[in-house]
Amino acid sequence: MIPAKTEIEAAYQRVKPFVHRTPVLTSNLVNRHINAELFFKCENFQKMGAFKMRGAVNAILQLSEEERKAGVVTHSSGNFAQAVALAARTLEVKAYIVMPSNAPDVKKQAVMGYGGIITESAPTLAAREKAADHIKGETGAVFLHPSNQMEVILGNATATVELLESHPDLDAVITPVGGGGLLAGTALAVHYYGNGCSTLAGEPFDADDAYRSFHSGRIETNKVTNTIADGLRTQLGSVNFPIIKELVSDILLVEEDEIVNGMRYLWERLKIVIEPSSAVPFAAVLKHKERFRNKKIGILLSGGNVSLSQLPF
Amino acid sequence: MIPAKTEIEAAYQRVKPFVHRTPVLTSNLVNRHINAELFFKCENFQKMGAFKMRGAVNAILQLSEEERKAGVVTHSSGNFAQAVALAARTLEVKAYIVMPSNAPDVKKQAVMGYGGIITESAPTLAAREKAADHIKGETGAVFLHPSNQMEVILGNATATVELLESHPDLDAVITPVGGGGLLAGTALAVHYYGNGCSTLAGEPFDADDAYRSFHSGRIETNKVTNTIADGLRTQLGSVNFPIIKELVSDILLVEEDEIVNGMRYLWERLKIVIEPSSAVPFAAVLKHKERFRNKKIGILLSGGNVSLSQLPF
Repeated sequence: MIPAKTEIEAAYQRVKPFVHRTPVLTSNLVNRHINAELFFKCENFQKMGAFKMRGAVNAILQLSEEERKAGVVTHSSGNFAQAVALAARTLEVKAYIVMPSNAPDVKKQAVMGYGGIITESAPTLAAREKAADHIKGETGAVFLHPSNQMEVILGNATATVELLESHPDLDAVITPVGGGGLLAGTALAVHYYGNGCSTLAGEPFDADDAYRSFHSGRIETNKVTNTIADGLRTQLGSVNFPIIKELVSDILLVEEDEIVNGMRYLWERLKIVIEPSSAVPFAAVLKHKERFRNKKIGILLSGGNVSLSQLPF
Repeated sequence: MIPAKTEIEAAYQRVKPFVHRTPVLTSNLVNRHINAELFFKCENFQKMGAFKMRGAVNAILQLSEEERKAGVVTHSSGNFAQAVALAARTLEVKAYIVMPSNAPDVKKQAVMGYGGIITESAPTLAAREKAADHIKGETGAVFLHPSNQMEVILGNATATVELLESHPDLDAVITPVGGGGLLAGTALAVHYYGNGCSTLAGEPFDADDAYRSFHSGRIETNKVTNTIADGLRTQLGSVNFPIIKELVSDILLVEEDEIVNGMRYLWERLKIVIEPSSAVPFAAVLKHKERFRNKKIGILLSGGNVSLSQLPF
């Protein structure tokens, strides 16, 4: 169930030539405020603006010659769409992208900019899956899942491999959790590369399937997905949940205003553009400051694709 | 008139322990768009959020024990105020800061946060100077000029020393020009550390004293200073202008909408928060793309202190 360390190591070597080794930022001001040492892994600076590039590249690089010819298809609320489009173009593979009709414009335009072929669907998981299935049937394209596929999870793990390589003594790494692919990958990397390090997640109250699943021990579904953290409106899956269940220490819930405040705080203090989903783990640390007192915490900033015309502040 | 290389080297060693070596960001997407290789020196990630920290630290470190006891005083539209406050606190010196009444709130709060003692003045150069003189008379504090003082200019130069250390083959470095202290420092660094490298500046049409001075050969004054680039509303000085006249290749003017577009473009593509002044040199490169074709250009992003409640987009 838990892949071996050699699999993560192989993914790391495989994706390396195609992704940025993103910087890790720190701020004395923020550290003094939180009373902890925070290390922000800036996947908002990743190619196409999010960690998703890692999983997409790792998955496409493992296709056969035959499969590459048929292309790839995915459905995504945004960043995985861009990731598949850019990774596919980089590796000269056709990319069919199903996007929900309510996805932010900036994300649709980026997918088109990377040469992705977009099909719009209703903004439900069922509609998205149906549209992707249809394309698969028509073209023979290989389906890539944004979060519930081992190649994608292992690709995602490489961000934390980098983080722990440069900062081996972290006490914890905290990520956002939406579909579960980043959290599972992070937990694997922490498991094999950490040194007394634990994996945590932040999640919005308004899309708390991971929190409830973590506590009930089986996959629970989202009842609402109204959160501003648009990357986290998705659902845990059967491939990533067993890893999360086994390797994650805790999931911390945050309110919508806490996400917005955390986002604004990081924009102002770190001078970086992050999307709302990225602010969720930081908001969780801010909310539970006393728990992280004097600890060294890695915070995975998952992406920076946000429409500047629709900022919440 | 032109200080020796040893003076820049000394400033570099002097400020090193007290400033961040800021990262240099690049973007394939941006490079493809411009048809040039751009290297963004991110002084928006500098302590207190702007390059001004360098000049303030360099100046304060050269005060006598006696002078340190009396403290320092300056007037500034914003970033130099924060820089002096933070540098002074770091070096355990009192800082009196004269700020124009129309300075952005976020900057006033930051100065107070760093322990600076603020006096407000009318938003004219004359009123600011008078208020600073008064404080100097009362307290014996040493006056630090935001841009027209050699210690400050030499401190500013260290950003470009770092840039050229990591990227020695740049064809040009371009900075914003307001008071002239950054441009003069940059020109000195390029002169001594560059390799066939030239120094350029971007300036708003709406505060074009440097452009006109550069062409007339003597210091001209601003007729208007309505530009959104609030850090560039200041005036060239007698210490920096001779350096600029001798070592700068050209000054390129940009319109207000070009500044806003350039700022937005960099926020979206680089995922970083920069203030309007920082966007001016990039806006100039964007406007004169053909001139920079296939060149390697260093762009000095001077700061990231912007009020998120008052964005121009």
